[in-house]
Amino acid sequence: MINQADDLSVTFAALADPTRRAILARLKHGDATVKELAAPFKISLQAVSKHLKVLEKAGLITRGKDRQLRPSKIQGDALGAAAGWLEEYRSFWDESFDRLGEHLR
Amino acid sequence: MINQADDLSVTFAALADPTRRAILARLKHGDATVKELAAPFKISLQAVSKHLKVLEKAGLITRGKDRQLRPSKIQGDALGAAAGWLEEYRSFWDESFDRLGEHLR
Repeated sequence: MINQADDLSVTFAALADPTRRAILARLKHGDATVKELAAPFKISLQAVSKHLKVLEKAGLITRGKDRQLRPSKIQGDALGAAAGWLEEYRSFWDESFDRLGEHLR
Repeated sequence: MINQADDLSVTFAALADPTRRAILARLKHGDATVKELAAPFKISLQAVSKHLKVLEKAGLITRGKDRQLRPSKIQGDALGAAAGWLEEYRSFWDESFDRLGEHLR
């Protein structure tokens, strides 16, 4: 079972980094190895590996068993739990857009 | 204009704490003073004030001008931006639920 409080904290902390979010954005288009992930970011393989470890620990990705390549793959459950938490606040941002709309009219 | 990368990091970092999320959950039901926010959590006013500063810096709340009470109020825009970022990954968690559904059948 998911421990809501702790898991959400770990999820949000893992997402609080632009490189880790960029890695997830790349993985949206398909699984990728460390080398493939490092290429567009122009950061070292070690730096990418470190970010992947954070993402894996947070359950946001899993990594393949192939000892050399270990391709990373997005796991959606934690992202879904975070989205579910935020969804409870929808009225607050819809309201902001309503106010913006009123302002523009 | 919102600087997506930085603002999202600050938002997710602010949300990566169970007490701060609990404060936001309380504010969902209406604006509240530090004293009102501290009561259910059984933590000091100072600890609550510290959390409110983080939430305010992240743009997740604003605080009233009344020098003594300064009631806190949810600001939805940053929450909406975070939800919008997560929304891009919906297929990954919907897929998980699909697989769970298949498993249960």
